[in-house]
Amino acid sequence: MSATAEGKFITFEGGEGAGKSNHAKRLALFLAECGCNVLQTREPGGSEGAEQIRRLLVEGEPGRWTAVTEALLHAAARADHVARTIRPALAAGTWVISDRFTDSTMAYQGYGHGLALETIARLNVFASDGLTPDLTFVLDVPVEAGLARAGARADDGDDGDREDRYERMGRDFHQRLREGFLTIAEGDPERCVVVDTTKTVDDVAAIIREAAKARLLET
Amino acid sequence: MSATAEGKFITFEGGEGAGKSNHAKRLALFLAECGCNVLQTREPGGSEGAEQIRRLLVEGEPGRWTAVTEALLHAAARADHVARTIRPALAAGTWVISDRFTDSTMAYQGYGHGLALETIARLNVFASDGLTPDLTFVLDVPVEAGLARAGARADDGDDGDREDRYERMGRDFHQRLREGFLTIAEGDPERCVVVDTTKTVDDVAAIIREAAKARLLET
Repeated sequence: MSATAEGKFITFEGGEGAGKSNHAKRLALFLAECGCNVLQTREPGGSEGAEQIRRLLVEGEPGRWTAVTEALLHAAARADHVARTIRPALAAGTWVISDRFTDSTMAYQGYGHGLALETIARLNVFASDGLTPDLTFVLDVPVEAGLARAGARADDGDDGDREDRYERMGRDFHQRLREGFLTIAEGDPERCVVVDTTKTVDDVAAIIREAAKARLLET
Repeated sequence: MSATAEGKFITFEGGEGAGKSNHAKRLALFLAECGCNVLQTREPGGSEGAEQIRRLLVEGEPGRWTAVTEALLHAAARADHVARTIRPALAAGTWVISDRFTDSTMAYQGYGHGLALETIARLNVFASDGLTPDLTFVLDVPVEAGLARAGARADDGDDGDREDRYERMGRDFHQRLREGFLTIAEGDPERCVVVDTTKTVDDVAAIIREAAKARLLET
């Protein structure tokens, strides 16, 4: 790969407890071993301004914001993340792996909270300045299993004491979310790979690694 | 007026140092004397969540946010303001006077920073949930005079020590802003009244009072 080539942009999507951050980290390590410069980041957040907006989104009561306000705050954080972190990194040839991106807004605020999908789609284009991932892993897990995992993580004190606003929304919400992610992936198979995460963590990591190799490294 | 009638929604718009907050206050006093319940509010802000978003917007360096992020943060604050403060007040029969609303996003981020006007228009409808003011006063002042007034206010310590991010943008920006507000008003004469604020404060207040009476009280 020449030093001036643009980096690739990979996103991990899915509901609570799907294992996104863990698998993002494992893929980042694998790609680094392959010789790529890799930046691992997350949404909401990933830049100084976006992390400040994140605090407004992840703390407080589930009903703190309306779905519209929430969609707009996520979009604002994304705009900062794209402009200050992702685009500069890609331009410098760094591969960027983000734990969540535009599909999460579509799934949570569109499918989950019932905002018009077309409006969310336009908002996503505006916020991301038209940036689309080269590859998206949609990590799929049945709702109960995902919430149980997320709950166990919270009990470990791993960011769970305050950052659990979404996990505390109802089961129906999480069911719509799961179906939303699957619908998004079905509609964009060139970009999205759905990964069943009820397999062992090592098996899931291997599937992700092979998909990244086949789609991005061997082309 | 019956106790169950919806309140009217009045906004004040214009660049820095046009006298918006002062004239909003004077009109609020006048309407209260006429027997209306009046709520005076402002943007960005006007609700608990929106005031938290406001702090991200008004503090820090002029280049802290891109124009897109800025537009989205204003929209997010507005969505909270409309849902939590303005709509409930109007429904209870209270008249609401806001220092800035959707026209400011169109003027600052659209005309001022050059974002697509159609995109901003759609964003405004989404954030405000389609709420349109019954009457908008566009307070017009030549750029130099406005910035001088805003600067004098800052020297008095009246919110000027930290909340001067917009005032520190260049003169050309403020010129585009002024022209933007005048263009918006020209395109919507049913809703907008342009008021030349180079007259004395009492003269300006009288013009505003008479326009509010003629357009909203005597109909």
